[in-house]
Amino acid sequence: MAENNSFIPPLENLASNFRKLPGIGRKTSYRLAFAVLDFSDDEAKAFSDSILAAKKNIKRCKVCQNISDTDICPICASEKRNKSLICVVEDPRDVAAILKINEFDGVFHVLGGLISPLEGKTPESLRIKELLDRINGLESVEKAEIIIATNPSVEGDATAMYLSRLIKPLGIKLAYGIPVGGDLEYADEVTLSRAISGRSEL
Amino acid sequence: MAENNSFIPPLENLASNFRKLPGIGRKTSYRLAFAVLDFSDDEAKAFSDSILAAKKNIKRCKVCQNISDTDICPICASEKRNKSLICVVEDPRDVAAILKINEFDGVFHVLGGLISPLEGKTPESLRIKELLDRINGLESVEKAEIIIATNPSVEGDATAMYLSRLIKPLGIKLAYGIPVGGDLEYADEVTLSRAISGRSEL
Repeated sequence: MAENNSFIPPLENLASNFRKLPGIGRKTSYRLAFAVLDFSDDEAKAFSDSILAAKKNIKRCKVCQNISDTDICPICASEKRNKSLICVVEDPRDVAAILKINEFDGVFHVLGGLISPLEGKTPESLRIKELLDRINGLESVEKAEIIIATNPSVEGDATAMYLSRLIKPLGIKLAYGIPVGGDLEYADEVTLSRAISGRSEL
Repeated sequence: MAENNSFIPPLENLASNFRKLPGIGRKTSYRLAFAVLDFSDDEAKAFSDSILAAKKNIKRCKVCQNISDTDICPICASEKRNKSLICVVEDPRDVAAILKINEFDGVFHVLGGLISPLEGKTPESLRIKELLDRINGLESVEKAEIIIATNPSVEGDATAMYLSRLIKPLGIKLAYGIPVGGDLEYADEVTLSRAISGRSEL
């Protein structure tokens, strides 16, 4: 605590790093920083190491763009999965949500976001080109199916529309899975399961 | 993403470290972990370093027990402050809140918590012995004054009561500063300023 009414530099620095995370405001950043001070040395070291290890060891699967610690993720590498059924999602948490229901036996494509001009998210900043390359590389376009499972928000719908305009001309079966008003991450298993099995063609 | 429906180990590990922080649940821990993946390498390094630096460089002031990067904090070391006026608070954030109002020219004593049997916080786990040692070491007990500025919660009141029973017999002037229903950290400057100047003797 310096006389200038702010906290000492190491604490201010830690709090300002917490504030770079989404949803962490000023007061919370200090609460978290003080909590770190109460960590044991081992706990602080483990926390610090886990940040560096995550950055260093987590890459993108070369096929589906999901997070992976291998060049090709276990889902894309699995012999059991139908490589002609591709579920397109916004981010890796959606993959986790859909995997949990054990209903879907295809593979994924992770866009890494949704089209949102206000947030500077253009189609070019998403992994759409990689999706089109994948579709063009499919052995049989006739047997393949793409499920667009973006969240039914304004951005999700805009992204789904944008994708459908690109994909439809390729002559591939295209479906839209998640009911309007839902949110993939929050959807319960039954809802998600129905959304996948009861998907409608676009 | 492993086939067992959980995230890859480096991400799970990072998320589990975030969950050691107060108020961070399962969903938030993953949101924060994914946000770290979006950090640049430099940002991740800065975050990681700030955790270790805070643990290494932040100690407790030997006099007031506030956080400090020196053995004696700047407040206790200041010649301008009245060392006979000691404001007893729960934690360093309360010190910051009171300093901000520029009304208080005394020094502090940071208890490091409040008495709360349910949370395993006994009087022995707080820095009460250090407070009594300080009072006993004062040059003139007659001129001294202790302001108890614990938050007016059940735990804050219990702690204030406990302290007053210990301190009153020492013949020192004792006051209670914060109005019932308030919270130091959230109190605006006028309220805090009035609480300090209009404190009532216990």
